[in-house]
Amino acid sequence: MFYYIQSIGTREAFCDLQMTKADEKWMNLALEIADRGAGYVSPNPMVGCVIVSADGTKIGQGYHERYGQAHAEQNAVDSVTDRGRLEDATVYVTLEPCAHEGHTPPCCKMLGELPIRRVVVAMEDPTPKVAGRGISYLREQGISVDVGLLKEKARRQNEFFLHHQALNRPFVTLKIAQTLDGYIAAPDGKSEWISSLESRTMVHRWRSRYDAVMIGRNTALLDNPRLTVRHIEGRQPRRIVIDGPLDLPDELNLFTDQYEEKTIVLTHNEEKFRNEADPMLSLLQSDYFRGKTLLVDEKEGHTDLKQALQELGSLPVTSILVEGGQNLASALLRDRLVDKVEIFIAPKMLGGGTRSVMGIGIDHMEEVLELRETQWRQVGKDLLFSGYF
Amino acid sequence: MFYYIQSIGTREAFCDLQMTKADEKWMNLALEIADRGAGYVSPNPMVGCVIVSADGTKIGQGYHERYGQAHAEQNAVDSVTDRGRLEDATVYVTLEPCAHEGHTPPCCKMLGELPIRRVVVAMEDPTPKVAGRGISYLREQGISVDVGLLKEKARRQNEFFLHHQALNRPFVTLKIAQTLDGYIAAPDGKSEWISSLESRTMVHRWRSRYDAVMIGRNTALLDNPRLTVRHIEGRQPRRIVIDGPLDLPDELNLFTDQYEEKTIVLTHNEEKFRNEADPMLSLLQSDYFRGKTLLVDEKEGHTDLKQALQELGSLPVTSILVEGGQNLASALLRDRLVDKVEIFIAPKMLGGGTRSVMGIGIDHMEEVLELRETQWRQVGKDLLFSGYF
Ligand SMILES: NC(=O)c1ccc[n+]([C@@H]2O[C@H](COP(=O)([O-])OP(=O)(O)OC[C@H]3O[C@@H](n4cnc5c(N)ncnc54)[C@H](OP(=O)(O)O)[C@@H]3O)[C@@H](O)[C@H]2O)c1
Ligand SMILES: NC(=O)c1ccc[n+]([C@@H]2O[C@H](COP(=O)([O-])OP(=O)(O)OC[C@H]3O[C@@H](n4cnc5c(N)ncnc54)[C@H](OP(=O)(O)O)[C@@H]3O)[C@@H](O)[C@H]2O)c1
Repeated sequence: MFYYIQSIGTREAFCDLQMTKADEKWMNLALEIADRGAGYVSPNPMVGCVIVSADGTKIGQGYHERYGQAHAEQNAVDSVTDRGRLEDATVYVTLEPCAHEGHTPPCCKMLGELPIRRVVVAMEDPTPKVAGRGISYLREQGISVDVGLLKEKARRQNEFFLHHQALNRPFVTLKIAQTLDGYIAAPDGKSEWISSLESRTMVHRWRSRYDAVMIGRNTALLDNPRLTVRHIEGRQPRRIVIDGPLDLPDELNLFTDQYEEKTIVLTHNEEKFRNEADPMLSLLQSDYFRGKTLLVDEKEGHTDLKQALQELGSLPVTSILVEGGQNLASALLRDRLVDKVEIFIAPKMLGGGTRSVMGIGIDHMEEVLELRETQWRQVGKDLLFSGYF
Repeated sequence: MFYYIQSIGTREAFCDLQMTKADEKWMNLALEIADRGAGYVSPNPMVGCVIVSADGTKIGQGYHERYGQAHAEQNAVDSVTDRGRLEDATVYVTLEPCAHEGHTPPCCKMLGELPIRRVVVAMEDPTPKVAGRGISYLREQGISVDVGLLKEKARRQNEFFLHHQALNRPFVTLKIAQTLDGYIAAPDGKSEWISSLESRTMVHRWRSRYDAVMIGRNTALLDNPRLTVRHIEGRQPRRIVIDGPLDLPDELNLFTDQYEEKTIVLTHNEEKFRNEADPMLSLLQSDYFRGKTLLVDEKEGHTDLKQALQELGSLPVTSILVEGGQNLASALLRDRLVDKVEIFIAPKMLGGGTRSVMGIGIDHMEEVLELRETQWRQVGKDLLFSGYF
């Protein structure tokens, strides 16, 4: 197995396969523990850190647990009981140690003061305030730094963070639950239940990892969903509903349940938005309703979705799971605003009803949207297809 | 692992796990070699046979190679070089040895004359002329017979034969090549190419295993397909086209290429069918065109598909791979005439165009068609979904 190891400064790239395998093991562990922060550290990245003594034993580990709390490196160092074993130790960290004062002092400085010999970093932190500075600083302290081990895996783990850093808008995943023949509801409009309980449970798990879930106004109106995390224990995400006309009834679950302050409405109806006398709006702006309403432009009679995502990105919302319906999904696809799809395909045929996707502006096969890095796996009786645009 | 072993007569069911594992190994081999007859033995079943000496060594094997030629058991016995080793040997055969004189003498009689100790049969032959008689005969000769080892696998292998035996009409597999969102052609009508080359090659392999491929008249007209086995070496199947009005142009590939005698047309146009003066028909009935035209009833303006399958079953055609288009597929599904689906799902989205299935008479989720024994696997970049109704 060959890894691309970027080691510009000190050229201490390791050539020993044994070494590489051990490194891989520890970095995988660091990635695994980093994942425990999913849903809780946004808009920060997930980071995991493992410390291994000179004799190859793990002496510490930690991860970034909550936004605003200690970084992974600090937690890992704090977990080392016999500080003497830090002598010539190796620190594995899934993201470049930070170089800026934030809620916490810079991690590179904290690491630089330790008697460690080497730091292995999965990937550079592209944040302008870091961007290689953490690595340079460590090297200046005479610590050997290897960069790039399991980089792709690290990049995938923090795809929300990286996407948001690069584009200032959230990473958008479109979730669809459809039949084999591509229908999301029967001709009578009902969709309970196309997918299996296992699939629906998985969606609840995702909800707890995304910053927000999003739906269109017809789905809100017809299905009155709660978009809560129920089948599993987990963090409740924000709930975004696109309501161009700003006239969804205020009795909807999204506006009345215990998570109402998590609801964000996007509208293009400036008049209604500004009209404080409007009963719905006064509700939206009252203490009772602590959610947000954001005004964006109209585009061809509907909410401008790109602008909506930019507004959400600046809140910041770094990731959104879109849960329907057909029109919102299709409009996002048409505007090329979807980054990933997660499609549950139930082993069933309807032969009619609401199609999963309709009208994304394609006329010829040459324009077909192709998914990359595709994966499929079985979930209950369903197949789950995942892919990136 | 536990196998249900049916051993009514002599009660010599084996309880020894070691024995069971060896038995399984030999029966799997017999099934594997039986498969080599696929496409060549119809309307007979595929059968494989392995002979193992008293000391556990394989001393012979054979399979039913071509319709009208020797049965598997005969081929296996003929392959034994040292006949002395047949003493107390065990014969593994994937289907009950036949009990009737056909092109060849009954296999049970041939086996009964050998000094073998035991016969292991995967499944009974449901053909009325056999139906347990082969097994009884062997037991009467003092040979121990165990029935039911890898029965499900054997049943699947001969699903075409068994279906045809039971219902007198062919086993129908519907093949679809679609996008993730369920489209088989772009809005401009083009479908080249939704699926990958690997998927298309697999379809050619299937063609060589089915008795016939079938398409609807619009597909014949618009795509003018050849439906031949090209990407691989294999037997050319019959080609069936549903042409209710009986007015497909005679220049089509189906009627003019080197396999024209393999083309069968199904029509409900009695007048045209009987009108010998019709130029198309005289062509159909001339020496030049050696294919068949079959007349069936009309049903709601189209060819009665159930009757069409019955007619085909009596030719006999035991298996059909339906390759489109949307209307034929949907009509077959609506009439519940499809036994299996094979759906290639390309990791692409079109958001419009021809839907894979449309109009199968379902209005409510409770009526949804569910697939059983579902499987999926990757073929090139595509996902292949298989399931039974
Ligand atoms: N099986 C499933 O997985 C599933 C999931 C969810 C929903 N559903 C079903 O889907 C149905 C509702 O879906 P729907 O498609 O009618 O509505 P929808 O997607 O819920 O609502 C349409 C939304 O798309 C927005 N949009 C933005 N640009 C658009 C454009 N160019 N064209 C059209 N809309 C645009 C609209 O914005 P404006 O408000 O600004 O107009 C509106 O908020 C329900 O029957 C529900 O049961 C099924
Ligand atoms: N991507 C793919 O996998 C794929 C494969 C094949 C075709 N295609 C595309 O599919 C298109 C052609 O499909 P199509 O749907 O127009 O036609 P079609 O399925 O090729 O032809 C319709 C056939 O269905 C028969 N039928 C029987 N009962 C019927 C009923 N109740 N209602 C309607 N038809 C009934 C018709 O019989 P009668 O003759 O008696 O009317 C006719 O032969 C072409 O554009 C082709 O490119 C795509």
